[in-house]
Amino acid sequence: MQFYKDGFRGGSPDVKPAAPNRRNRGPHEPLPEQVDVLIAGTGPAGLCLAAQLAQFPEIETMIIERMPRNIVKGKADGINTRTMEMFQAFGFADKVKRETYWVNQTAFWMPDPANPQHIKRVGRVQDVADDSSEMPHILINQARLHELFLEVMANAPSRLAPDYGWEIVDVTVDPTTDDHPVTVTIKDATGVNWWATRTVRANYVVGCDGAHSKVRQAIGGTLHGDAAHQAWGVMDILANTDFPDVRQKCLVSSASEGNVLILPREGGYIFRMYVELDKLNPDEKAANRKFTQEDMIAAANRILRPYTIDVKEVVWWSIYDIGHSITDRFDDVPEGADRNPRVFTAGDACHTHSPKAGQGMNVSMQDTFNLGWKLVHVLQGRADASLLRSYSRERLAEARRLVETDHEWARIMSAPTTPAERDGTEEPRIIRQFKANLEFTGGNAVHYAPSALVGPGTYQALAAGLAIGRRFHSAPVVRLADAKPMQLGHVAEADARWRLYVFAGRADSTAPGTAIHRLADWLVTDPSSPVVRHTRPGEDIDAVIDVRAVFQQTFDQLAVEQLPSLLQPKTGRLGLQDHEKVFCVDHKGAGDIFKMRDIDRERGCMVVVRPDQYVAHVLPLDGFAALSAFFGGILRPV
Amino acid sequence: MQFYKDGFRGGSPDVKPAAPNRRNRGPHEPLPEQVDVLIAGTGPAGLCLAAQLAQFPEIETMIIERMPRNIVKGKADGINTRTMEMFQAFGFADKVKRETYWVNQTAFWMPDPANPQHIKRVGRVQDVADDSSEMPHILINQARLHELFLEVMANAPSRLAPDYGWEIVDVTVDPTTDDHPVTVTIKDATGVNWWATRTVRANYVVGCDGAHSKVRQAIGGTLHGDAAHQAWGVMDILANTDFPDVRQKCLVSSASEGNVLILPREGGYIFRMYVELDKLNPDEKAANRKFTQEDMIAAANRILRPYTIDVKEVVWWSIYDIGHSITDRFDDVPEGADRNPRVFTAGDACHTHSPKAGQGMNVSMQDTFNLGWKLVHVLQGRADASLLRSYSRERLAEARRLVETDHEWARIMSAPTTPAERDGTEEPRIIRQFKANLEFTGGNAVHYAPSALVGPGTYQALAAGLAIGRRFHSAPVVRLADAKPMQLGHVAEADARWRLYVFAGRADSTAPGTAIHRLADWLVTDPSSPVVRHTRPGEDIDAVIDVRAVFQQTFDQLAVEQLPSLLQPKTGRLGLQDHEKVFCVDHKGAGDIFKMRDIDRERGCMVVVRPDQYVAHVLPLDGFAALSAFFGGILRPV
Ligand SMILES: Cc1cc2nc3c(=O)[nH]c(=O)nc-3n(C[C@H](O)[C@H](O)[C@H](O)COP(=O)(O)OP(=O)(O)OC[C@H]3O[C@@H](n4cnc5c(N)ncnc54)[C@H](O)[C@@H]3O)c2cc1C
Ligand SMILES: Cc1cc2nc3c(=O)[nH]c(=O)nc-3n(C[C@H](O)[C@H](O)[C@H](O)COP(=O)(O)OP(=O)(O)OC[C@H]3O[C@@H](n4cnc5c(N)ncnc54)[C@H](O)[C@@H]3O)c2cc1C
Repeated sequence: MQFYKDGFRGGSPDVKPAAPNRRNRGPHEPLPEQVDVLIAGTGPAGLCLAAQLAQFPEIETMIIERMPRNIVKGKADGINTRTMEMFQAFGFADKVKRETYWVNQTAFWMPDPANPQHIKRVGRVQDVADDSSEMPHILINQARLHELFLEVMANAPSRLAPDYGWEIVDVTVDPTTDDHPVTVTIKDATGVNWWATRTVRANYVVGCDGAHSKVRQAIGGTLHGDAAHQAWGVMDILANTDFPDVRQKCLVSSASEGNVLILPREGGYIFRMYVELDKLNPDEKAANRKFTQEDMIAAANRILRPYTIDVKEVVWWSIYDIGHSITDRFDDVPEGADRNPRVFTAGDACHTHSPKAGQGMNVSMQDTFNLGWKLVHVLQGRADASLLRSYSRERLAEARRLVETDHEWARIMSAPTTPAERDGTEEPRIIRQFKANLEFTGGNAVHYAPSALVGPGTYQALAAGLAIGRRFHSAPVVRLADAKPMQLGHVAEADARWRLYVFAGRADSTAPGTAIHRLADWLVTDPSSPVVRHTRPGEDIDAVIDVRAVFQQTFDQLAVEQLPSLLQPKTGRLGLQDHEKVFCVDHKGAGDIFKMRDIDRERGCMVVVRPDQYVAHVLPLDGFAALSAFFGGILRPV
Repeated sequence: MQFYKDGFRGGSPDVKPAAPNRRNRGPHEPLPEQVDVLIAGTGPAGLCLAAQLAQFPEIETMIIERMPRNIVKGKADGINTRTMEMFQAFGFADKVKRETYWVNQTAFWMPDPANPQHIKRVGRVQDVADDSSEMPHILINQARLHELFLEVMANAPSRLAPDYGWEIVDVTVDPTTDDHPVTVTIKDATGVNWWATRTVRANYVVGCDGAHSKVRQAIGGTLHGDAAHQAWGVMDILANTDFPDVRQKCLVSSASEGNVLILPREGGYIFRMYVELDKLNPDEKAANRKFTQEDMIAAANRILRPYTIDVKEVVWWSIYDIGHSITDRFDDVPEGADRNPRVFTAGDACHTHSPKAGQGMNVSMQDTFNLGWKLVHVLQGRADASLLRSYSRERLAEARRLVETDHEWARIMSAPTTPAERDGTEEPRIIRQFKANLEFTGGNAVHYAPSALVGPGTYQALAAGLAIGRRFHSAPVVRLADAKPMQLGHVAEADARWRLYVFAGRADSTAPGTAIHRLADWLVTDPSSPVVRHTRPGEDIDAVIDVRAVFQQTFDQLAVEQLPSLLQPKTGRLGLQDHEKVFCVDHKGAGDIFKMRDIDRERGCMVVVRPDQYVAHVLPLDGFAALSAFFGGILRPV
């Protein structure tokens, strides 16, 4: 964490200095007439976007929510390792780690062959494979997660807060202008001026307004998919039980009573159960069946036999029959049309999933983490608005992949077990599939196709463990200046900046004349260097592209005083030296990043990482022209 | 972190439910006429005590501060590993870890033999030895540390906040009564009713009012020690430099210009320098010399030659000549008198140290961490007031030890180097002494003598690595219920409870009939068991003594369902099962606690740990009578 760059400032370093000229927010304050970005909905998708945009007070952002305040409980709870890596960039991963349940193991229970009316543990799987991520897989109350984003927004320079109690009723786009072409009609949903309508004009609108999205409807999107015709109940409870694995994530299949999924939760007492209820007729809605809490508890007790659950408090419960569904596009540009989008949808507004795979909340946030930096680039004038076309393309492909996997998983979960599985002669298919899915459910299988934002694999072999198009997989390093052991990936903040990780070759040191010095000098001085071309006069040298170097030596073998200026730049109002650009291999037993990520020890390489933590390119240390061309394809020259 | 035990409650789990009937605080609110504990001063000592007492709303606590608000900058900054372990118990160690500078290495610089006018690095020492603590040694702005305690107080059930702007002028004790016998006279120091006086009566008064303590004076204490006759300057600066180790802690001795100590600080830019200035005449005060910031910067530049420092902002600076000093006793009981104390002093009020050793702030907090639980025990009626006599005894011995070490260190730091040290043929004495002192400066050498609170070493061999009288040295374990890797020491909170760690022998499992079951059954049922004798009717079984078990098997080798009820107790308003009492050895490579702490694998043992994290006793698993006797010597039967 770096702070005091512009001078000392007391108090919590998470509270950034407030920008001037902010509008007052509150039920008695006037709404703005126009904004840069209007976000609909304060679910995970909307808040994740707002938390990013809030860092840029020059971008006027408004986030509107129909409800009068944040939710208190319920809804999703699974945060996969990939999302935790993203939380690190927002600065609250440590807080989340501290107060949540960690899914370390998943246990599988099936009918006991000796007594099929009773269940029996048939296996356990380590839930996060070693070195698949430095982060745990955690479970948290969605409402609490919202609070963490709201805190980031409140502490950001723009002191952003939602406008609660306003419901979007319509969105129209005027194709003849570029000046706030989107008109959003909202109505007062709190009753202060009940049903009174207002309009707000925006340059961009992002519909994060959930499965019944008005924004999606306004741009002509429809969700299509298949209903599962199966009612499920979900409940968060405080309960006692003799079921021994109640503090482990469990998939329980009974012989004839259906399935239960157990998810322990934050604080050590509460847990969630997903309980399979009745099959539904086609066209029947689960809501119509009028299931009660008592139905769910009774079903759970039947499934878990011989164990029983004694419920002390039902904190939240819900019945649903969500299948999988998806829209054809995530923006307002019709198939085949050649224009830039003005309206987007994200999260449940454009794709819904079965809660059992625990992906819904995660992909929702990943959607807007993908969109956020692109909006910032365009609104700051750093990139052409055509950059925004990549959002729908990249995220639609991922959503489709998710729906497919979801399908497969639902099929396996509801398939009857074979005798070989039951008597233990064969590993149950559900366990095999669970293991095979781990990278996917961890959120780490996302793979963006080559494009202007994702380079070709020409030099992939230089860093075989950092696949182009996939998330930057962090590994341990030691910071040169202060010998601090840390994770390299944790230098990335949700600040819309690019990272250029420069891995030194074996012969490289900090000494002048090495490949690192040549690259650093070129980056600072050459007219074709992306740092020179895309950084504006007066901006810090790392304002757009943040260059970090990693050496193969340990910290005590390198001379700080020989570093090139780019790696010890003077930035900020006071022009203070930045000492955090250079890293070494770990000397404390945490692992060698060059080995762990299969980086070419002889040649080293450059790894370009997008603001959303995805690897954009791998290039040799002298790949000057390719690096220029790559950034030239995205960013405008200044 | 455990929460929702009494039912679900949204929001941050650090914000505990507020107790009813709290008084309003603020400049326009009346002061209370009487309180249980009155704390003088909101430095580290006072705040650490207030943060503990705030957890107990039934104890009326008042904390008074002369200044109108918290400080913003300056004063001490070093937090040793022992204090970090204590912060873990207060719940903010993770926050501190995230936002502070970690002292990983200390570098030593001396005159270059080839050119004695220039300095040269002569060595580095890993600052926190492997497995000396699971915590880092960190540096933080003292004002920020105060904020973290203030937050704990504000979030505690009693929502405690300081009464700012009131200065203690006198403290008197009426020996004829036990009903609020201490009368404290305070005066309005903010100017609202300038110099108006009030009195508050208290059962106990703790003077945490710094080196010029009025409370100490009122109880007849005087600080005696020796002045160093040496002026030092300290400054926190934002500066650029070509000195390569500016982000490492450095001890720099120049040939003829004196010494500089460099301490990098939070945020990556700011650092502190202690600069040796002129020798003083006897009876001369440093303040009289009228040193300026410029004098200090010039001196630093002379000492650091050939390197230079270009200061961009002086955040804080101060000149001082503090030596070491100490009072004869830390309470109001005169030598030889046989009565219980009513007034205490803590921190700088009773002992001051040279800032260079970085101990002042740490021992101040350790003082009141020692006192806090004792006050709670007495005020809750769990222990006789004679328990409070142990405070002065235990802390005075430690303070004396600290003064001695401080002396020794100051002597070595100012001694001239030998030719052998300078030409590298001999490791400099300063480095040797620094290494030898590490355990001490880490705060981990504190060793309380045998007493009613510290058992004899009869069975020490059963856990040779957990020395009786020293702090409980944490080690990695895995929690049985959810397979979570964690630190055993982190189960301890600053909640005035005792911990009884039960280490199972090799043959023990969760199966009935083992030594663990026998012990657990005895603890729950036997009339002589300390759990039975000292837990009040209606209280949770772990309200006073929190029993935790550690097994030698890994989590997948033990059956949760066989645990004795004490290790899966039902507690709280809802009678919910507690799943966090049982631990296993680590299976992830973090280390085997039995081996790391040298615990007898055959026999296992019990380790009694005090509420302030000190090991009080080690006993065999069947040491029933000794355990009863030990607790019987401290706690009252109910
Ligand atoms: C009742 C319920 C139970 C769920 N249970 C689970 C579960 O058990 N497990 C699981 O993994 N996932 C569950 N989900 C799904 C999960 O919560 C979503 O995948 C996730 O919240 C998606 O985030 P989002 O931001 O896209 O949408 P949402 O979280 O749905 O947020 C949309 C927001 O937009 C607001 N909004 C809607 N329309 C308008 C409008 N016209 N104007 C202004 N604001 C509007 C809504 O009030 C809401 O705050 C559940 C969802 C619901 C609704
Ligand atoms: C100017 C200064 C610089 C220091 N610099 C360093 C340093 O560089 N490095 C280092 O390690 N240590 C330094 N110290 C020492 C370090 O700050 C102390 O060791 C540490 O703060 C001790 O904590 P404490 O709570 O015992 O006392 P303090 O932090 O001194 O707190 C005492 C509090 O009591 C208040 N108070 C005093 N008298 C009264 C009264 N009559 N009524 C009400 N309130 C009263 C004071 O305003 C103060 O807030 C410095 C101390 C001072 C004063």
